[in-house]
Amino acid sequence: MNEEPESILLPAEAEPLPSTQIWIGPGVLERADRLLRSPSGRFVLVSPPGARAAADRVRRALAGGLIADIALDDREASKNLAAIEAIADRALEAGLRRDDAVVAVGGGVTSDVAGFAAAVLLRGVAWNAVPTTTGAMADAAIGGKTGVDHRAGKNLIGAFHPPRTVLIDPRAAEGLPERDFRAGLVEAFKAAWIADAGLAAASRSAIDRILAREERALTSLLAGAARVKADIVASDPRESGLRRLLNFGHTLGHALEAAGGYERLRHGEAVAWGICAAVEISRRRAGLSASESASIREVLVRLGPFPEPDRDPGRLAPFLARDKKATAAGLAAVLLEAVGRARVHEGVPATEWLDAAAIMSLK
Amino acid sequence: MNEEPESILLPAEAEPLPSTQIWIGPGVLERADRLLRSPSGRFVLVSPPGARAAADRVRRALAGGLIADIALDDREASKNLAAIEAIADRALEAGLRRDDAVVAVGGGVTSDVAGFAAAVLLRGVAWNAVPTTTGAMADAAIGGKTGVDHRAGKNLIGAFHPPRTVLIDPRAAEGLPERDFRAGLVEAFKAAWIADAGLAAASRSAIDRILAREERALTSLLAGAARVKADIVASDPRESGLRRLLNFGHTLGHALEAAGGYERLRHGEAVAWGICAAVEISRRRAGLSASESASIREVLVRLGPFPEPDRDPGRLAPFLARDKKATAAGLAAVLLEAVGRARVHEGVPATEWLDAAAIMSLK
Repeated sequence: MNEEPESILLPAEAEPLPSTQIWIGPGVLERADRLLRSPSGRFVLVSPPGARAAADRVRRALAGGLIADIALDDREASKNLAAIEAIADRALEAGLRRDDAVVAVGGGVTSDVAGFAAAVLLRGVAWNAVPTTTGAMADAAIGGKTGVDHRAGKNLIGAFHPPRTVLIDPRAAEGLPERDFRAGLVEAFKAAWIADAGLAAASRSAIDRILAREERALTSLLAGAARVKADIVASDPRESGLRRLLNFGHTLGHALEAAGGYERLRHGEAVAWGICAAVEISRRRAGLSASESASIREVLVRLGPFPEPDRDPGRLAPFLARDKKATAAGLAAVLLEAVGRARVHEGVPATEWLDAAAIMSLK
Repeated sequence: MNEEPESILLPAEAEPLPSTQIWIGPGVLERADRLLRSPSGRFVLVSPPGARAAADRVRRALAGGLIADIALDDREASKNLAAIEAIADRALEAGLRRDDAVVAVGGGVTSDVAGFAAAVLLRGVAWNAVPTTTGAMADAAIGGKTGVDHRAGKNLIGAFHPPRTVLIDPRAAEGLPERDFRAGLVEAFKAAWIADAGLAAASRSAIDRILAREERALTSLLAGAARVKADIVASDPRESGLRRLLNFGHTLGHALEAAGGYERLRHGEAVAWGICAAVEISRRRAGLSASESASIREVLVRLGPFPEPDRDPGRLAPFLARDKKATAAGLAAVLLEAVGRARVHEGVPATEWLDAAAIMSLK
């Protein structure tokens, strides 16, 4: 070094993530033309074949504003960068501009993929989420986590890119197969269990009506779950702290899902098993009472029966070690001190999860 | 609609883009171990074969901290999502964590691609830029614009993701072929012309020593250009206003580059022609004086000779229409009122660019 180098500091800029307006209620989709947001008034629609009924309502609402109408293969196996490329091809051919917006109509894979495409197209355009599954309504469509899978794990390539609006219309889930409907509700109850004891109690009392898809009961649960998620995300948009509470049931859940090759278990089903194990560990480590533990298990049993997971510790262990939230500090576990009160416990050893997985039961 | 829908506002979060520390000086690379940033102390190195000398210096500096050493094909034709996938494969196989960081050692394609990979891996990890070309030192490595190309145009898929540090060591450009060295200097002079009349005058006087790669003269120009870019980016990180000034020469430049299939002209060469045309339009529309116009052309002539561009209006027009900064408001042109004073003029018709392209000359 001949002389002192020159140094320039380009300061950190407080550049806001955009706000998200969430609309919840039966019939909200009929107002899509007034509620969906695009700076230019032009939209790119992305939807899978399974969401056709809801997508048709959005098509009618947006009518002349649609510049592209893109079909998405929303199977987990197709949730990859090739899907982003395919959306980019169609959107750019249609002349996408920076002031246009994407609308994703579908389940969690659709909002993850279309939201990520919006994050990277022209270095970021606005998007809107219209979830059509209970899982996406309660969880996936809210909060700005978007992305695709990599063979090393789920959602390993992505962005934080919140939608401008989320339209949660319980009627959009009308055609949902029973298995998907029930699996998605696990995430809704999860939200109640970690942060809203009143919602948990009310929804447990209403479980028959919820499972019968009674509009008012279902809307109450989904709205409560959305509110929990929105409150937590608002306080921690980039998942550096509080937001980890939303991963209740997911540490083991992700490993169970991966060990089943993403075929044996739906995401919500894997989370149900993960919650079952987390409840046991919460009894021992976090003081969760026997009666509250039983009340959670009772709801999980009603939401099931769920397929048996692969419990082989040798198969599960490598996936536990790959947890995306792992840092030099090791694995973190979300445990319940009581219904409605979750806390992150650092350093619960993987073996404890594997032991819980070996004996957990939902009968 | 049966009843009023519920509405939840998830507020906009002031989530800062990280700050960038830029270090400039001969020998800065020798301090890489102390200057490069990674929260975990672990790094993923990405570099093309052409940057081996500089990459070797970084390898030595980081020694045990390297968890992956990834070779990049940095030709423009390989600047696509497949390159992102390839980096993801290697980085994730190596066990990348959220607190690890990427180091990009190379030219503009390298920082664009590796920076974009860092933006989307695990939804965003830190990265550092070590530019090895004059173009990347003066422009590409600073400011957080990352991305890859699409057949519809350059840099159409990407993210705003500023590097934590940029190490600008003029010695890293020592092995640079003469043509690339000169093309890159166009971006450095561009920075002076739009925002720093003193730098423009000093660098014009020093042009012989700069072209002879004399360390002190070259460092002064690169440091000045970096400061101009940093100042502008700091005031407009997401290119909503002032930052468009950096596109001086780029409206027509991008079209010339595209019309040549990204083979006939280097980026900096296309920008030189674009500046030549913008100077003519600035004379007529923005009051640029004849003497200042001549002083700019004189420098461009010294930086050349540049290959003849494709001037065919029929070939250029479609690329002009595709300008990424085009919105409903139409094309914007960056013009000079004086050396060191640029302004955006809205609505300069494409025909005016095509007319200027037809007659421009750098002899």
